[in-house]
Amino acid sequence: MIDIRPIGYVIGLLVAVLGLTMLLPMAIDLIDGRGQGHVFAISALLTFFVGALTALACQTGNREGLTLQQTFLLASGVWIILPLFGAIPFMIGATDASFTDAYFEAMSGMTTTGSTVFTGLDALPRGLLLWRGILQWLGGIGIIVVAMVFLPELRVGGMQVFKSEAFETMGKILPRATAIAGQISVIYVGLTVACMLTYLALGMGAFDACVHALTTISTGGFSTHDASFGAFSGKMEYAASAYMILAALPFVRYVQLLNGNRRAVFQDTQVRGFLWVIGTLTLVSSVALVMLFPHHWEQALRESLFNIVSVISGTGYASVDYMKWGPFLVTIFFFVGLIGGCAGSTACSVKIFRYQILFACIRARIRAIHAPHAVVVPRYDGRPLSEEVLGSVISFFVFFVVSVGVFAVALALTRLDFVTAISGAATALANIGPGLGDIIGPAGNFSTLNDPAKWILSVGMLVGRLELMVVYAMLTVRFWRA
Amino acid sequence: MIDIRPIGYVIGLLVAVLGLTMLLPMAIDLIDGRGQGHVFAISALLTFFVGALTALACQTGNREGLTLQQTFLLASGVWIILPLFGAIPFMIGATDASFTDAYFEAMSGMTTTGSTVFTGLDALPRGLLLWRGILQWLGGIGIIVVAMVFLPELRVGGMQVFKSEAFETMGKILPRATAIAGQISVIYVGLTVACMLTYLALGMGAFDACVHALTTISTGGFSTHDASFGAFSGKMEYAASAYMILAALPFVRYVQLLNGNRRAVFQDTQVRGFLWVIGTLTLVSSVALVMLFPHHWEQALRESLFNIVSVISGTGYASVDYMKWGPFLVTIFFFVGLIGGCAGSTACSVKIFRYQILFACIRARIRAIHAPHAVVVPRYDGRPLSEEVLGSVISFFVFFVVSVGVFAVALALTRLDFVTAISGAATALANIGPGLGDIIGPAGNFSTLNDPAKWILSVGMLVGRLELMVVYAMLTVRFWRA
Ligand SMILES: [K+]
Ligand SMILES: [K+]
Repeated sequence: MIDIRPIGYVIGLLVAVLGLTMLLPMAIDLIDGRGQGHVFAISALLTFFVGALTALACQTGNREGLTLQQTFLLASGVWIILPLFGAIPFMIGATDASFTDAYFEAMSGMTTTGSTVFTGLDALPRGLLLWRGILQWLGGIGIIVVAMVFLPELRVGGMQVFKSEAFETMGKILPRATAIAGQISVIYVGLTVACMLTYLALGMGAFDACVHALTTISTGGFSTHDASFGAFSGKMEYAASAYMILAALPFVRYVQLLNGNRRAVFQDTQVRGFLWVIGTLTLVSSVALVMLFPHHWEQALRESLFNIVSVISGTGYASVDYMKWGPFLVTIFFFVGLIGGCAGSTACSVKIFRYQILFACIRARIRAIHAPHAVVVPRYDGRPLSEEVLGSVISFFVFFVVSVGVFAVALALTRLDFVTAISGAATALANIGPGLGDIIGPAGNFSTLNDPAKWILSVGMLVGRLELMVVYAMLTVRFWRA
Repeated sequence: MIDIRPIGYVIGLLVAVLGLTMLLPMAIDLIDGRGQGHVFAISALLTFFVGALTALACQTGNREGLTLQQTFLLASGVWIILPLFGAIPFMIGATDASFTDAYFEAMSGMTTTGSTVFTGLDALPRGLLLWRGILQWLGGIGIIVVAMVFLPELRVGGMQVFKSEAFETMGKILPRATAIAGQISVIYVGLTVACMLTYLALGMGAFDACVHALTTISTGGFSTHDASFGAFSGKMEYAASAYMILAALPFVRYVQLLNGNRRAVFQDTQVRGFLWVIGTLTLVSSVALVMLFPHHWEQALRESLFNIVSVISGTGYASVDYMKWGPFLVTIFFFVGLIGGCAGSTACSVKIFRYQILFACIRARIRAIHAPHAVVVPRYDGRPLSEEVLGSVISFFVFFVVSVGVFAVALALTRLDFVTAISGAATALANIGPGLGDIIGPAGNFSTLNDPAKWILSVGMLVGRLELMVVYAMLTVRFWRA
């Protein structure tokens, strides 16, 4: 029998904290007088007390070590249960959403996906817009802690390649998670404030700057306007691109940077690969745009950079409807979404380091073909890759590809067309936000989908955010027997 | 400097044989009097003499052993050069095709892809229809020899897992290839004759039965009618399904069966997996069809079985336009094409055994997560998988997925729409035949595509047929420096 008390304790505490953060949108609404004050007051009270009582009820458990089972259950539990409470304001507030819509929006927020079922964002009370931003911001920092502490511990997805260099000297898992969360918070808050100040300096309104900073640094992509970043001017796109890139870099490097290692960021193999991919794709896209449309080259470059960075980092802001850019760029955008940012950031999808490890494996194979008697070991970052890391990365990649297929078929079963189904599956599993086509493309949204499709997508976002294996490992008989 | 004489010798001989086979369609046309006799006479003369002269000029080379470089060049060279000659009748014959169209058709034939640029097949001279069938039939037996002799030798794609059980005691590569080709020919011819007699018995005309037998056993899929198998009745679909399945099983098992091992076929892990997948998918598709349309259950079962088998075996016959079956089944058909048949057959795509190996790898990882201190080695067919095989299979899978992306982007660059581009890339690389959408879907054909797209697809068919790595390994500097 699994002792769920430590899990209940941690989730209870997090739910209680979520309840407290609802006081921020409540405060905004009390200023605005848009009648959402009591909505957030009720939500906050309910959420805080349920969370606090759960934590109290479970406080007798062991609060230091966690078994493997408990760690899996905790990681999944957080992303299943917190959106339940995050959804309350959407149900009882001005959005008047059904449970399906509200849970979809909250899951899309906390997984930093950024697909939305709401339209008329510009007219929505600011309290609700801020709440969407806060959900993404909290989800973002949560996932960095999971990536840095839980995934290496669970030995899934190949994240254990980063284990040795990080923090495993810091003791048992929960104290370590707390300590890392503290260190990361400083950087995360610092980046968010810097981003907000930049947006302000470039002329964005204070509220918009605040919400967009929250959803930029979390690579979440919720906006306060139906037009997303299309509502803002040219310089703002460059600024957003820069901050989306910063948010998709490995946060452990920032910790090292703060500790005095000036080269930490740019000597990172992932970072180099990531910047190289962005540069190449932006160039290709700019050339294609200049040739296809009577764009000024600066506009072509800017729109290319912004939208490529937005998709590859998994942020999912749109500044234009790139469905109108023709099939070449549409196809590129589909596959760019399957690349993703760096591990240990808020970005999702397959991620740069996994491709680097897979290509190292391929290079080793090609060398072995040419030199049949040599022993060739694939390397990453100069160090030989263990079978465990290789096996984990392969499992992740195969699961990711197969999952896109299975989720696409499931979505098609709800009668979504082929393009909506396949791009919907990809955008949910990679936590990007927009898909392709007229319905869920950059100019559309998820409001018109049927309820079963929304639930399938919610599950997809969860599975993708937790790097697949965290969820899939729990589906085995072995897991529950142990 | 690479000694190209052994390569020239073998390719020359094969070209000469190809020239001789042109006498068959010539004979047919002399009976029909459709004016293609001189077309095939000229093509045959030209092809035979160029081939024979090349072989003569190169006969001074070593004809037993081949270096690794030579083996790579030979395998690629055969599938690049033979279609050049196979294209001649299409250029000077009644089809009056451009070089691009003729080469596309011949490449589509010899790679057993079966995508066609010709319309009005029903009215075409029988000589040309027979020639299309012959190209696929020759390509089919060629690829079995490559899969059984060359790929394990080159240690690419994980085919080396089948090496120990096969024929490596038979000496050097070219004599071995000849010996295996002899053994396989008996089975291949036997299956073709059986298939033809079955079609005849079920009421197909003699000529149609002959050509369709050639393109069924090679899982090629060229038909003599624009309506493909839609032109034939119910029982014929069951018969074709059975022979397409037989053609997608590993031919080495038939050799063992002939040698008295009665259980060889059904104890094969691949065969069991393949039949299980077909059974499951047919059931799902039948249920979906019965629910969606007022089908009689027998019709739903029959059309499901035929079209699932046609796509999974990579044959690519169509009996109905399954684009009209709704998004659920369309999406299933897209992903089914990425599964493929068994290794060592004429089927292409990723193939059952690679998925089995990848899933064995994933199972081992999941077990290792639950039991962190156990040593868990992935197994296939009861035997532990070597790192070499695993690395090869991973390389193949990653290359396949990335190639679909790269070819789709390249096709989109020629302004094909997203669905045509992505399904065109998949159908070429997996050598299936039809894609999705109105243009290249089961009811369409490839005639209206632009020339660059046809060349990209031709390269895709070649790369896919040679299991990617055979072509990609030659793109490295290391290959040419050795
Ligand atoms: K996002
Ligand atoms: K085919």
